[in-house]
Order: sequence, then structure tokens, then C-alpha cells
Amino acid sequence: MNQRFLAAAIQLSAGSDKGENFDKAERLVREAAGRGAVLVVLPEVFFWRGARGEEVNAAEPIPGPTTARLGRLAADLRLHLVGGSILESVPGSPKVYNTCTVYDPRGEMIARYRKAHLFDVDIAGHVSIRESDTRLRGAETIVAPTDLAPIGLSVCYDLRFPELYRRLTVAGARIVCIPSAFTFATGSMHWEVLLRARAIENQVYVIAPNQVGPGPSGIADYGHSLIVDPWGTPLARASNVETAILAEIDLDYLARVRRELPCLEHRIFDA
Amino acid sequence: MNQRFLAAAIQLSAGSDKGENFDKAERLVREAAGRGAVLVVLPEVFFWRGARGEEVNAAEPIPGPTTARLGRLAADLRLHLVGGSILESVPGSPKVYNTCTVYDPRGEMIARYRKAHLFDVDIAGHVSIRESDTRLRGAETIVAPTDLAPIGLSVCYDLRFPELYRRLTVAGARIVCIPSAFTFATGSMHWEVLLRARAIENQVYVIAPNQVGPGPSGIADYGHSLIVDPWGTPLARASNVETAILAEIDLDYLARVRRELPCLEHRIFDA
Repeated sequence: MNQRFLAAAIQLSAGSDKGENFDKAERLVREAAGRGAVLVVLPEVFFWRGARGEEVNAAEPIPGPTTARLGRLAADLRLHLVGGSILESVPGSPKVYNTCTVYDPRGEMIARYRKAHLFDVDIAGHVSIRESDTRLRGAETIVAPTDLAPIGLSVCYDLRFPELYRRLTVAGARIVCIPSAFTFATGSMHWEVLLRARAIENQVYVIAPNQVGPGPSGIADYGHSLIVDPWGTPLARASNVETAILAEIDLDYLARVRRELPCLEHRIFDA
Repeated sequence: MNQRFLAAAIQLSAGSDKGENFDKAERLVREAAGRGAVLVVLPEVFFWRGARGEEVNAAEPIPGPTTARLGRLAADLRLHLVGGSILESVPGSPKVYNTCTVYDPRGEMIARYRKAHLFDVDIAGHVSIRESDTRLRGAETIVAPTDLAPIGLSVCYDLRFPELYRRLTVAGARIVCIPSAFTFATGSMHWEVLLRARAIENQVYVIAPNQVGPGPSGIADYGHSLIVDPWGTPLARASNVETAILAEIDLDYLARVRRELPCLEHRIFDA
């Protein structure tokens, strides 16, 4: 197992044209691979960001066309790819899952996580969203076993629930991915603080690619994609443009943090 | 129930003279009361900061002389007082509890919390402490019922354990106190991030008075006492001097945060 390798987070501003979104994502994944990344993480709904009422139409089965293309891209570049999320259709249901899939360097899909916490909020004058109107709730915690490290999966609003990250960590995660479309109104106050807290309290690397700018629904996402080390240091940060950010994952450093400040061994309450 | 009131956090640099420490704490509590605070929180081991080997000698029974003086001070000023922590002697034991006590405006002790997580760390070149050599571990989560609001109790290193704050919140806490002697080496990277995260994810007010400067053991504490609102906004922050910081607690604002972004209702995993 490599103890040190480069990981990338891709920041995008997806629209409602799926082909265009994937082309743009692919360009940035190839750029990250060219810079040496062997683990690349896309943001939530990188494949399509549109109006709530059109979600069922945009959704796809898994496996399906978008997951097939993600697998081919991972195989072509010989890297691990965390496919942000796509909306997953459910036969016979008017609602969809928001699903993160992971691919190994042979292009095999090795994990699938369905977002567990749905964003139902109504912040006066800022943002009003009811994901549960159009989406189904996942119920499983998923750690993808990879040759690089065990990778815990989560999506966006999950970030507010520390108990999920405790579960992922106890299940062995050394890296946690949080592909997001985190809104500007909440992200400007909560995004970096919560990402760093999850890294610090679980002593894991956090890779958090975000969408940026307004989508077709009119709600602006915060950007500022972030990669954080297990001591809570922000290693790489995007501003508010479409970009790939890279940082080194160092599992020896992670082991040292856990050895010097063994808080994970000091837990006395169940997560 | 008052929906708005002033709370204070007292930042101290305690030494090994108990009388001197209490006199200094009392002056700042009186100052905070004079500025309108009706809830005042002292830092961890405000009553005595000394060498590890002298802890058993410094410890007191509860109730005992220091808790009696805390009760008299609360009654005299007609306020709620969270007495940071003192070392609590245990008959027949060579080890002590690190215990937070709470007093109502009549001077009655209404709650007692024994620190649950012990700080056993060894960070190369910075800080090496093994609290479990001299201290016993508490096992209960305590929310003090007060006329102001339910107040959840914790001490210092507990801050790294989000599951404790979930338990306090589920048990009704609207305010969480984290009296601390948080070291400089860890505090400079983790203190404010974790305090703000606890406030954001639990939608509570966080009152966190810290010790500042080197104690007789030679380890320097970080200062930067903080009061945070339920949206994660730092309302008041100390620098690195002995001082009282004040901020307004607004329970209507807390209710609005919980109504607009009802993440506490969206939890699906047990804490």
C-alpha cells in the first residue's frame, strides 16, 4: 500500500445539460490525473443540476449510462474515481436516490452510497429546499475498500451529522469524501468549520469537492472545495471557479496523529 | 423564562495558591455581574493549577470549602454560576475526579459533572500528559436544569467527542459549557474550530472559558475563551489575558435557527 499519494477534488458549476457537464468534469479529472492524482473526487450531482420537478427525468439506473462512463474514465486514467453523486432512478417510484459511486483503476464499481440525510430547510430570505419532496433517504453507512485506503462516503448535508463520520471512522475509514452542492447561505458560515471538525475529531483526511455558483434552480452553491488533513490543516482550497485542487495524502502522518493524540481510543460513548 | 440574557466566560491563569486563584476568579465574576451577566462560567481547575504529583493534596471533597465559597458567591450576586472544575477527592483513592459544579442564584448546588474523557497524549516536542495517571473517569452526561435554560456540562478534552454533545442536546441542552485548560499546542489548531462545530451541529450556545499561559506544570494553555451562538457565530472572544467576556444568549434566536434548519430532527443514526 502506498503511504503517500496525490488526491484531487473537482469543483464544478453543473447545469442541466448532462453531456456538457460530464465533458467538463472529464477535462478536470484528466487535468488532475496529469498532475499526478491517483484518487479524484467529483462533487454532488456533477452530472446534472436542474429544477426539482425534472429530477425524476434526469435520474438514471445504476448501473446506467453515467456510471458506465465514470468506469471507463477511471480505467482509462488508471485511478480511483469517486463519482460525486448522480440521481438514481427507482423503478416505479416518483422519487430518486442521491447516490455516490466509486470506481477502481480497472473501472469496476466497488461501492455505492445513497445519501442518508435529506436537506429540508427554509431559511428566511436565503434558501428554501425540501429534498424529501423528490428524493429517497439511504440508510447504510458505506466504506469503500480500496488499494489506497478505506474511503468513507457521505454527501453534502450529511456533513452536519457527526455520528455518521464516527461510524465511518470506526468502520475503518482513513479518508472521508463529502461531495457537495453546499449552498452559499449556509456554506459561508458552516462549510470549512464542519469539514475541519470532521477531520480533527476523526483523524481522517477529508476530501470535499463542492459545486459553485447558481444552478438552474436559482440557488447558489458555495464553492471553496477543500482537502483537510487529520490534524485539521486545510491542505488545498478552491476559490469560486471551476477547478481541480490537489493535495498529498500521507498515511504515515495520519498514523502519527492517531498515535500522538489517541482520542479515537478514548471514546467512551457509542457513536 | 427570560428569552434574552447576558452570559460571561472568565479567562484565568491559575497558579498553585488556591486562595489567590479564588480571589482573582471572584473579582472577574463580580465584574461580569456588574456588567449584567446572570450566568457566569469559570474555566477548568480555576481553583488550582499545579504539578501532577500534588493533585491529590489539592483535591477537595464535594461539598467542600471551594464549593461552599462558589455557592456563597452565586447567592451574593444572585446569578447562575458554573464553577469551571475543581479536583474532587475520593476517600481511599490515590486518584481524583475533575468535577464541574453548578449553582443557582440561591447558592444551591444544582448539578455536578465529572469529566468523562481523560487527556492522555504525547505530541512530540509539544505536550506530554497522562491525566489517567492521577485522575478518575466520570461516566454520566449531565444537563443542569436552570431557570435560564437547560445547561449541558463538559470539560476541556471532552470537546473532541461529538457524541457527548449529541447526548447533551438530545437531553435538552440549549447552552453547553466547556470550561477548559486547553493547551496552546492543540488549541491553536483545534479550539475554535471544534467549539464552533459543536454549536453548529447541535444548534446550541457554547460557552467556553479557557485558562491562559503557562501553569506550574510548565504546559501553556491557549486562552482565546469563546462564546458561540447556535449558527456558529463567535459572539465574544478573549485574547491571551485574564478577563471576562460577555455575550447575549437569545433563546428566541436559537428557536429560529432550529426551525429554519431543523437538522436535529433529521438525525437518523443514534448518538
